[in-house]
Amino acid sequence: MADRFICLDIGGTKILGAVMNEKNEILLRVKKKTRPESGQEAVDGRIRKVIHELMSACGIDRKDLRAIGAGAPGVIDMKSGNVLFAPNMPWKNHALGRIMEEEFQVPFVVGNDVNVGVLGEWKYGAARGFSHVVGIFVGTGIGGGIIIDGKLFTGSGFYGAEIGHMIINTEGPLCNCGQRGCLEAYASKVAITRELKAGMDMGMPTVLADVLGEKGSVIKSGDLKKAVLRGDRLAVSTFQRALYYLAAGIGNLVNIFNPQIVILGGGVVEALEEDVLSLVKSNIGRFAWPHMLEQTQIRAAQLKDDAVLYGARALISETLGY
Amino acid sequence: MADRFICLDIGGTKILGAVMNEKNEILLRVKKKTRPESGQEAVDGRIRKVIHELMSACGIDRKDLRAIGAGAPGVIDMKSGNVLFAPNMPWKNHALGRIMEEEFQVPFVVGNDVNVGVLGEWKYGAARGFSHVVGIFVGTGIGGGIIIDGKLFTGSGFYGAEIGHMIINTEGPLCNCGQRGCLEAYASKVAITRELKAGMDMGMPTVLADVLGEKGSVIKSGDLKKAVLRGDRLAVSTFQRALYYLAAGIGNLVNIFNPQIVILGGGVVEALEEDVLSLVKSNIGRFAWPHMLEQTQIRAAQLKDDAVLYGARALISETLGY
Repeated sequence: MADRFICLDIGGTKILGAVMNEKNEILLRVKKKTRPESGQEAVDGRIRKVIHELMSACGIDRKDLRAIGAGAPGVIDMKSGNVLFAPNMPWKNHALGRIMEEEFQVPFVVGNDVNVGVLGEWKYGAARGFSHVVGIFVGTGIGGGIIIDGKLFTGSGFYGAEIGHMIINTEGPLCNCGQRGCLEAYASKVAITRELKAGMDMGMPTVLADVLGEKGSVIKSGDLKKAVLRGDRLAVSTFQRALYYLAAGIGNLVNIFNPQIVILGGGVVEALEEDVLSLVKSNIGRFAWPHMLEQTQIRAAQLKDDAVLYGARALISETLGY
Repeated sequence: MADRFICLDIGGTKILGAVMNEKNEILLRVKKKTRPESGQEAVDGRIRKVIHELMSACGIDRKDLRAIGAGAPGVIDMKSGNVLFAPNMPWKNHALGRIMEEEFQVPFVVGNDVNVGVLGEWKYGAARGFSHVVGIFVGTGIGGGIIIDGKLFTGSGFYGAEIGHMIINTEGPLCNCGQRGCLEAYASKVAITRELKAGMDMGMPTVLADVLGEKGSVIKSGDLKKAVLRGDRLAVSTFQRALYYLAAGIGNLVNIFNPQIVILGGGVVEALEEDVLSLVKSNIGRFAWPHMLEQTQIRAAQLKDDAVLYGARALISETLGY
């Protein structure tokens, strides 16, 4: 009997699945579109299909499969496996865990995808060996996860660590959450896009004019990278402004959580890793106490697109002990 | 043999000591001036003297005394009992715990006074029965303490929960910690005093003119209360402004920690409890998510000046199990 684990990264766009062996090596990957607009049953069906395909392609029997772990968007009760609420998915008080356990007859553990990604970085990535970790992922939005004393922090109602919606300016710009001045309203790709478009509307020249044409579009990390590396003035100043505010948010988290390490990940960080780290480090002194910063390393995440898959494996191990 | 506990509230101005019995009733209190300017040995001597006086006045033998607990200012390594750093005390890397254990031959546990005060409110006060608690004390400065999943949160290096120095406006007023825009720079008595004095300097009439004359003075909570209740325009608008920002800070903590309850204490809250609670509740909706707020009660602390004494008792019970 082989020990096999199935790990899932369920996103609003795609469902990634992987089979891992007992050494946590990925043996096979499967990917499917999520199509959240097709409704709850259809989405659950596609998740099931990913799992079935992984099992049959790897010749896994139910007795080989120890557990299934998953990261998924939204607020998830990690004890019951219920998705309480997920803005971009057809789920509300949805018993995802129970449904999957009934189908596959193995333990199914699930947590918020960003939280699970931080678990992955902690167990297998950049934060290995630390017990107090703050993870921040900068993409379309800003998400985070916190490890306190070797345990994932979730808050009393699994809403914890909404660090993208920490307010860093009480009268700041409107955030799509309805608050004003959230970190996400300054340093996410949505915020960066808004600033870039404002600059273009004022007639500032930029190499990004073409890619930002579409209404409601969000800049791609790769396009931002190209423009910044080319020295495009609007792109550089917008990026630097976003990083100044990101440093403010990280500074707050350092003063509040006194972590040993802050891990930065997500599309923007992956695209411009060196610049992000150097701008955060040069700005953060204004926003956190020196003796706190002395105790805190700031590093880029390592697992990139596999963070949630490895995090799902870590969740299995943290929850079930294997 | 009776079970007796000695609980200490060591402050920059005074040392409060109390004997508690096994029912956590206070049998006797002793108070001495701290006189931090007299140096480390003299201060430690006065702490010892408080303990000796309590023991002899209560007829406590060493075999009756189960443990000594204390709250003290500064950053304290709760595992070793060492005071790492305390801005207003003659202590630096000071082995307070070891010294007291050698003298009294009983366990001596010590933590940061504000953290210990929150422990007190959690075990014996307003936050009894909850497992996720945020405590905020508004006085000369702003301090806090966090209970996560039934455990006091201290951060990796015992610097955690410096919530008074969370930045709520990146370009805000200078804080005495050297940062800008800290919660403490908006909502503490020092901040309130600064605003009041600025108003007076502009020639605004206020009943507080007399009490704010002295350079470097900080307004007393009682004076603020009188002026606000009398409808003094400068005092009311300054107080309301401070509470708006306090609500912003609390909103951030709600979004980050997802607590079940927020406890508000300290001199300003005790003086104007109803107004503080109503202003926080009416302003916080702008600064925290509705579904987070739904899960969070906001209440005044109950133990007032005894919070640290009861917290010291709670610290004994949490650390030593009795």
